[in-house]
Amino acid sequence: MAVDTFTERELDEIYAFAVQLGKDAGKLLLEAAQSRFNGSGQGAQAFEEKDSAVDIVTKTDEDVEAFIKTSITQKYPSHAFIGEETYSKGASRAYLISPTTPTWCVDPLDGTVNYTHLFPMFCVSIAFLVRGRPTIGVVYAPFLNQLFTACRGRGAWLNETQRLPLVRNPTIPPMPANAPGGCVFSCEWGKDRRDGPEGNMTRKVESFMNMAAEVGSRGGKGGMVHGMRSLGSATMDLAYTAMGAFDIWWEGGCWEWDVAAGIAILQEAGGLITTANPPEDPLTAEIPEVRLGSRLYLAIRSGGG
Amino acid sequence: MAVDTFTERELDEIYAFAVQLGKDAGKLLLEAAQSRFNGSGQGAQAFEEKDSAVDIVTKTDEDVEAFIKTSITQKYPSHAFIGEETYSKGASRAYLISPTTPTWCVDPLDGTVNYTHLFPMFCVSIAFLVRGRPTIGVVYAPFLNQLFTACRGRGAWLNETQRLPLVRNPTIPPMPANAPGGCVFSCEWGKDRRDGPEGNMTRKVESFMNMAAEVGSRGGKGGMVHGMRSLGSATMDLAYTAMGAFDIWWEGGCWEWDVAAGIAILQEAGGLITTANPPEDPLTAEIPEVRLGSRLYLAIRSGGG
Repeated sequence: MAVDTFTERELDEIYAFAVQLGKDAGKLLLEAAQSRFNGSGQGAQAFEEKDSAVDIVTKTDEDVEAFIKTSITQKYPSHAFIGEETYSKGASRAYLISPTTPTWCVDPLDGTVNYTHLFPMFCVSIAFLVRGRPTIGVVYAPFLNQLFTACRGRGAWLNETQRLPLVRNPTIPPMPANAPGGCVFSCEWGKDRRDGPEGNMTRKVESFMNMAAEVGSRGGKGGMVHGMRSLGSATMDLAYTAMGAFDIWWEGGCWEWDVAAGIAILQEAGGLITTANPPEDPLTAEIPEVRLGSRLYLAIRSGGG
Repeated sequence: MAVDTFTERELDEIYAFAVQLGKDAGKLLLEAAQSRFNGSGQGAQAFEEKDSAVDIVTKTDEDVEAFIKTSITQKYPSHAFIGEETYSKGASRAYLISPTTPTWCVDPLDGTVNYTHLFPMFCVSIAFLVRGRPTIGVVYAPFLNQLFTACRGRGAWLNETQRLPLVRNPTIPPMPANAPGGCVFSCEWGKDRRDGPEGNMTRKVESFMNMAAEVGSRGGKGGMVHGMRSLGSATMDLAYTAMGAFDIWWEGGCWEWDVAAGIAILQEAGGLITTANPPEDPLTAEIPEVRLGSRLYLAIRSGGG
């Protein structure tokens, strides 16, 4: 089975292409958002906001994915492409990420609810996978003017100037000795809000309270984290974990395009990402490498080294 | 009892002063943050990150408040000043905001935990109160480059160019007919994490689950909001509610300086803020005007008008 490999120079070229593509796609997202609050230009074609906000977002989502897909297939016709909009959710999961074909994994708009409401935590997310591993990641949040980029071996960066994690000089601070105490923890609540003993939301709240509650409570499970954050975007959570702003991020139910670019950035920033099922013996268990498609993720910021 | 009043021209001058003060103070916050991740300049005076991050933040907090207080008292010696750092928490609450003396109410750094971890959701918050009412508000988040400003009668603005709420052309969209369904709801978890039936955290989680859970659950209380957000800054929550990005924000335990500037901005953006205790009969009860010092707040974005 032939596996494509790339020279460093080829990777450099693909990286530069991906970064520019992320900037261009983010600009499209911001322009479509601005058309909703500008009185001139596109906004002058006034629409009934209350009915059409979701339609506009859906159309923007599809348009931006089509732009990205076209750009990639023109430039790299032999590469595979997986995007949220073009992916059939009913298909078998086993072949989603090819172990042999270089694959682009794209979410044209992560944080859709935020985008609908114009809360700035939305972004475009572009990953390039080699042998199934996230190798290049580009996450651009245009309303925040924050661009996160990484390519294996080249470091992870904020706005192409500040290396991630941000605090690294003279050293990257270690995780707190009493972790999760002292940590900023991020998680998302999602759309599955079933209540009741076996409901998805009830189980999430249980885990959340274990992390949050004062030390000594909840039968010894109380973690008393320093703070809990929910941004409404798994990709932004991963980017901020790469930055070192979040210490821990946990999520279940993510799709590949939600996390692929963020994983590339986090790993290149020295962070760790693994599956989120607790091991039988935490002291001796190996930490399994993240597997795209596992749907359950636990990310930890770089702790120096 | 003499009450100071101001001409429109005087208010304009005070407003311009407050906006510049917010920009300058935010710049100080950002410079102190950058000194933690730059290898040159101030950052070259390397420190042991793990021990001193909190000390640095405390010193920055105090320095920025001193800068703001000195600037105000030099320019307006007859005005009163209340700041988080200079306020003695043991003092009587009754006289905190004078009904007669024009008063500045300042939080030099809201979102302290975020600042410690370099998560960008931190800001300086400056309010000017006339007859105890928030009249001018300036909130500046320098890491996001987002400046929120308002003065009574002059509108509320993002970065001095975009009027708030952002979506207003041709009309500000109404709140969803099935609210809180369809709404983005923000809340904070704070530091009081007592578990158990009467614990603060348990009660917060109950309210949170009522807002979040699917319709029909929780004895009819399930609100199925569109999304739940926690940023770690009450001031940023209020600013984003003014922007229209959040529909509802609820918080208990805030101090005056956490909310005064945000209230000025929200109200000038057409939003509503009141105390957060539910009325006996929601259909007929009047909505009481917010009272600084009430500690419990419920904010709703502008629903058009």
